[in-house]
Amino acid sequence: MQKRLGRQTVALERPPVILSHAAVGGKQEGDGPLADYFDHLCGDSFFGEKTWEKAESAMQKQALSSALEKASLSPEELDYILAGDLLNQCIGTSFGLRDFGIPFYGLYGACSTMGESLALASLLIAGGFAQKAGAMTSSHFCTAERQYRMPVPYGSQRTPTAQWTATASGCLILGSEGRGPKVTAVTCGKIVDKGVTDPNNMGAAMAPAAYDTLSAHFLASGTGPRDYDLVITGDLGVLGHEIVSDLFAQDGVDMTQNYQDCGMLLYDIQKQDMHAGASGCGCAASVLCGYLLRQMEAGHLKKILFAPTGALLSPTSSFQGESIPSICHAVVIEK
Amino acid sequence: MQKRLGRQTVALERPPVILSHAAVGGKQEGDGPLADYFDHLCGDSFFGEKTWEKAESAMQKQALSSALEKASLSPEELDYILAGDLLNQCIGTSFGLRDFGIPFYGLYGACSTMGESLALASLLIAGGFAQKAGAMTSSHFCTAERQYRMPVPYGSQRTPTAQWTATASGCLILGSEGRGPKVTAVTCGKIVDKGVTDPNNMGAAMAPAAYDTLSAHFLASGTGPRDYDLVITGDLGVLGHEIVSDLFAQDGVDMTQNYQDCGMLLYDIQKQDMHAGASGCGCAASVLCGYLLRQMEAGHLKKILFAPTGALLSPTSSFQGESIPSICHAVVIEK
Repeated sequence: MQKRLGRQTVALERPPVILSHAAVGGKQEGDGPLADYFDHLCGDSFFGEKTWEKAESAMQKQALSSALEKASLSPEELDYILAGDLLNQCIGTSFGLRDFGIPFYGLYGACSTMGESLALASLLIAGGFAQKAGAMTSSHFCTAERQYRMPVPYGSQRTPTAQWTATASGCLILGSEGRGPKVTAVTCGKIVDKGVTDPNNMGAAMAPAAYDTLSAHFLASGTGPRDYDLVITGDLGVLGHEIVSDLFAQDGVDMTQNYQDCGMLLYDIQKQDMHAGASGCGCAASVLCGYLLRQMEAGHLKKILFAPTGALLSPTSSFQGESIPSICHAVVIEK
Repeated sequence: MQKRLGRQTVALERPPVILSHAAVGGKQEGDGPLADYFDHLCGDSFFGEKTWEKAESAMQKQALSSALEKASLSPEELDYILAGDLLNQCIGTSFGLRDFGIPFYGLYGACSTMGESLALASLLIAGGFAQKAGAMTSSHFCTAERQYRMPVPYGSQRTPTAQWTATASGCLILGSEGRGPKVTAVTCGKIVDKGVTDPNNMGAAMAPAAYDTLSAHFLASGTGPRDYDLVITGDLGVLGHEIVSDLFAQDGVDMTQNYQDCGMLLYDIQKQDMHAGASGCGCAASVLCGYLLRQMEAGHLKKILFAPTGALLSPTSSFQGESIPSICHAVVIEK
């Protein structure tokens, strides 16, 4: 029924269709090169709410509402939604989804969440358990800064390897039938921890997980980077992207032609002073649900391997001297 | 292929089998009435580690190792594991699983996580995406107290409605074939929030979610409480259990015969001074993976409806004046 390609990869013989997608962003995202691909941009970091946490929920509400509207669906027509975010106890998601009444499986995959939610939603549909399912995530610069680092008004200096958490949300709706790009394969990642302990260098911590999952995917599916118009990792940023390229070069695999990273695309890194690039669940989510899927619909991309990566640490684990376990989930999307 | 019963419920026509299960607990759990059903009990709240967070990971390692051993499986033979916990960024799980190398989907469902992980692992197997999958969760009194309430040494007084977070972990291994109790149906919950704002009264906050999911399950499956040897919610405690019973009584549904709550079983509530009972992901997980599944194997229970409930709040959301969104996922287990 399903074509299992080894332990981690499944090829979906009745691939789910991406019926609609929506991306929401903040001020920095609106100043970046992908601004035109967002459905909504808001210059107010509070999105009309009283706190940044509520603003993050407001972004999710807006992303989901837009995706539903674009697919001409009511919330009642969605069988499931799979979503999560970076906040403690994922409150961006639980408060964002509270009023929709959609059966909900909550996820925590750090910045890999868009890959995880898209993978599991695809499997639920391909398995015959749902006809329509949503996948969503978000992040917010101000909620992430005060939770993971320092209060924003403190104005602490950032290291050169640091990334900028995107203020953004992405949502897409999958269906068992319809028109749109299709999810044709899914590779589930394993936790990889190579001992990196610097929470200001997430790219280095997460790159080995991206390498691990992409390698597993290539091996299981008998493909290589040239079989895709684009191989795109989540928010590894400039440094992580270089490490992944180097790791593959050691295997004799050339990633120089068509490998990109969402964290390098969302901002004009030099002009916007973004150091190593963008990060946060909302980065990969909004790059996929804005730029990438629109490029596919326009025919500029026909087959992509989308592989967001997440760092599964917390401030507590770093304070306790722990290294940074990471994970990467990969999904093949074809037009 | 699959029998979808309405929007939230799926009957599994090729039901996955629970091949093995293991429960790990701490001192209070060892002093309680279910002590004999644990595989491992440890009187040291640190479980030999330097911090309580690392202790929680150690519990997960032990639960998974025991479940694998009891099923005569190596970690390499597990296609997936689905797991999560209550800690910020779910570090109990990510550090617990780090060394196993098992493809991993991380979940956040608060205290509903054992239901969510069991549901999704069952769907992955029933859908043909895996042959063997694990479901696991944990909680620890000391990590939860300092994260959600006050540092343990502060010795703050607890309200009568408060529950005691279990120091426990439960893990089970599902297979597409084999001998053991089977997961025959799954009902995915929706977020329900009736406006309760008191984080020391989780039972009242979560009871409407349990009522919502159980009602949806009964309606979709054409069953009632009498069709099960036991209907058992997660950690609602004494007060939440009473509210669920009352809500069903208003519908003319009698829950007085065979309805229990894991939070009322784990401790001797009077003797151990547990106020409203037990809570935490580890409560429902260890009651299922210790007591309940052993009762099924011994033939004392033939068909149960296991429905753990989770409160999707954080300290931040409570400080910002928010009410408590809750969710409940239900799973039918039959011998």
